[in-house]
Amino acid sequence: MKIYKNIPRSQWPELCQRPRLQTGDLDSIVSEVFDKVKTSGDEAVKAFTRQFDKAEITSLTVEPKEWKKDAEVVLSELKNAIFRAKKNIETFHKAQLSQGFSVETEPGVQCWQKSVPVEKVGIYIPGGTAPLFSTVLMLAVPAQIAGCEKIVLATPPNGEGKIAPAILFAAQITGVDVVVKAGGVQAIAALTYGTESIPKVDKIFGPGNQYVTAAKQKAQTEGVAIDMPAGPSELLVIADETAHPAFVASDLLSQAEHGTDSQVVCISDSLEFLESVNDELEKQLQNLPRKEIARASLKNARFLFSSDKIETIGFVNAYAPEHLIIVSRDEEFYLKNLKNAGSVFLGNYSPESAGDYVSGTNHTLPTGGFARSYGSLGVDDYVKKISFQRISPKGIQSLGRNIETMAKAEGLDAHARAATLRLAALKNEKL
Amino acid sequence: MKIYKNIPRSQWPELCQRPRLQTGDLDSIVSEVFDKVKTSGDEAVKAFTRQFDKAEITSLTVEPKEWKKDAEVVLSELKNAIFRAKKNIETFHKAQLSQGFSVETEPGVQCWQKSVPVEKVGIYIPGGTAPLFSTVLMLAVPAQIAGCEKIVLATPPNGEGKIAPAILFAAQITGVDVVVKAGGVQAIAALTYGTESIPKVDKIFGPGNQYVTAAKQKAQTEGVAIDMPAGPSELLVIADETAHPAFVASDLLSQAEHGTDSQVVCISDSLEFLESVNDELEKQLQNLPRKEIARASLKNARFLFSSDKIETIGFVNAYAPEHLIIVSRDEEFYLKNLKNAGSVFLGNYSPESAGDYVSGTNHTLPTGGFARSYGSLGVDDYVKKISFQRISPKGIQSLGRNIETMAKAEGLDAHARAATLRLAALKNEKL
Repeated sequence: MKIYKNIPRSQWPELCQRPRLQTGDLDSIVSEVFDKVKTSGDEAVKAFTRQFDKAEITSLTVEPKEWKKDAEVVLSELKNAIFRAKKNIETFHKAQLSQGFSVETEPGVQCWQKSVPVEKVGIYIPGGTAPLFSTVLMLAVPAQIAGCEKIVLATPPNGEGKIAPAILFAAQITGVDVVVKAGGVQAIAALTYGTESIPKVDKIFGPGNQYVTAAKQKAQTEGVAIDMPAGPSELLVIADETAHPAFVASDLLSQAEHGTDSQVVCISDSLEFLESVNDELEKQLQNLPRKEIARASLKNARFLFSSDKIETIGFVNAYAPEHLIIVSRDEEFYLKNLKNAGSVFLGNYSPESAGDYVSGTNHTLPTGGFARSYGSLGVDDYVKKISFQRISPKGIQSLGRNIETMAKAEGLDAHARAATLRLAALKNEKL
Repeated sequence: MKIYKNIPRSQWPELCQRPRLQTGDLDSIVSEVFDKVKTSGDEAVKAFTRQFDKAEITSLTVEPKEWKKDAEVVLSELKNAIFRAKKNIETFHKAQLSQGFSVETEPGVQCWQKSVPVEKVGIYIPGGTAPLFSTVLMLAVPAQIAGCEKIVLATPPNGEGKIAPAILFAAQITGVDVVVKAGGVQAIAALTYGTESIPKVDKIFGPGNQYVTAAKQKAQTEGVAIDMPAGPSELLVIADETAHPAFVASDLLSQAEHGTDSQVVCISDSLEFLESVNDELEKQLQNLPRKEIARASLKNARFLFSSDKIETIGFVNAYAPEHLIIVSRDEEFYLKNLKNAGSVFLGNYSPESAGDYVSGTNHTLPTGGFARSYGSLGVDDYVKKISFQRISPKGIQSLGRNIETMAKAEGLDAHARAATLRLAALKNEKL
């Protein structure tokens, strides 16, 4: 472990670099798949599923019968955990519902705003070795709370053409309307254009590998919105000697086991503490099932010694971590000066994995420095805020001249006349 | 004027098509400019300004002296209108400030959310024949209310290397910190990477032509967020015989004069009314300064006769207009069933130009059908919502098992252990 000591600000940009995967020519593959799905619909999605997922699919959606039966095999311990997570996620996300507001900006000028649900949303759940049912909860619960009319879940089938029971169970209890057996670029293309059996949606949510990420970018140019730019996961821990090295190491490994491109950062004002964390990392790595991934990811890790808390929080804000754990005597100072982070965990007993699963906060968060501009995913991402206004004759008589003046100064005479005509008409009317 | 009568739903997709400008190979131009600005900074920006704007610039930012002096020449009538617009925009946008919230999702599990301003924002104001100072108000006022620390405005200089006084005036009264004399792709590139004299920002706002739009897309892939996908402006009017044909025509022309790629749509349950609107359009076009643009844009117009209000609102939701004017006996029905629109204007005395300038609502709105997923620009676009959680020993003892169960079911053992270690430690401690 190399420890960077009191690094000067000039070196921050380099230390804030995230690992980048080599990506080939994604754009041409994405374009090809999009074109084929657009023109051939279901047939194309099935063909790509055969090619990429090695699965032969007859129906691209999960039949209600299959859905219910398969979900039944989920063990009751897991079912209970999922129910509890759902309840807490609901509590935290219901508190985000906005009531809208109405103001009279001038006499006779009433303006208001209302949150209206995005009608059709697509949620993408990556495939792989384990079923990411927690992401179903994180993406479908806010959709349900927002009042979205149609929730379409897409996830790649396994070799037998099946979807994991835990995903079907989570989908069932969170109001998902359609489960699509397709993943990768072809799934995003199908949600973008719609096919015979897959509904077109208005916005696509969810994580994925670089192909899915590139496909979501393409979807945006085709008129479908996306949640946020996705990237490898990351965790930054600020800890002093009030923290348990074993706990911190376990949190760093939770992050490191996600993928070889994950990044973990640990900042402390104690060199001894950093050394203890390192020892703990070695110990805990020994019998970790995903130790190869975690070890590779730890090559991207940064251990920083910082004796100045102003510099510490300065670096954190420059890095803008997705997850931030703070276990420190100076917690209050850090909270006060924190500008950029996705989700923050405080104290020794708030592991990141609590927020990943059951505490109630959302685990869909900005990565790669996007925490400077994006926050945590929430109900607001499933609604749009529509503005309304009603201007009375008195209101337009009061504002009309200003509209004329400003419109003319911008060279937009038709804009001015829309006011002028109304002012003239009112002159001839008794109000 | 061709009137489409009670068009079947199967033809809606075609009628919802927006005019598309032929765009050449924007990507290669954008990439070239970005690369040069990234490597050569100010020099590159100046060179592109010489090439594209035919302006020779010594300093890329407006000096405070120049700024103040130039702004003074704005006529007091315009100044007053701008002050009033600012006041109303402030009133409407202050109402959007979110207080955040805090909930205990379980005993010992405290979760909260806080809105934190995006630190540095860039606002882009297009050049052209007239100074778009209204857009300065619409983009800078919410930034100021959100509490952004740095507001950088970029706009192309004229041939003398000057910025329009009205833009400088609006910038001065809305807390803009830096005015950059650069436009087009080079301005977006400079805001993305930063140069010797232009600050790098976290998020870029504002309209622009297809080059600016492509540049903003590129900025996103370089880690800078953008407000929303931009496109040509559009207006849909639902009107029955309670509406004044002259008013409706003036509103349609307000939209049509923006550009040849703008689109206006008018739906009525009265053929006679549609004919009257058409007559008024011809009349009002006669002496309109921008009549050539408006006439070209009207070629994209759609006049629809619909005798069934369910079909009418169905079409509106399918079209998802940026601006929607409703002047109808059935206003209440339409409002109740409206799903997709950016900004809505009600009744005979609420011209769209009121919202463009002074009523208080924002004129930065989703176009091209993006009103299905995006709302009006507002204070929320200048903040990010950060989640926080603090779990007590009691809290983790209660949630710990669930975290273990879910993490193991997802094959993420290190996630489970972060809970296990804490549970084990607590067993040996007196709580």
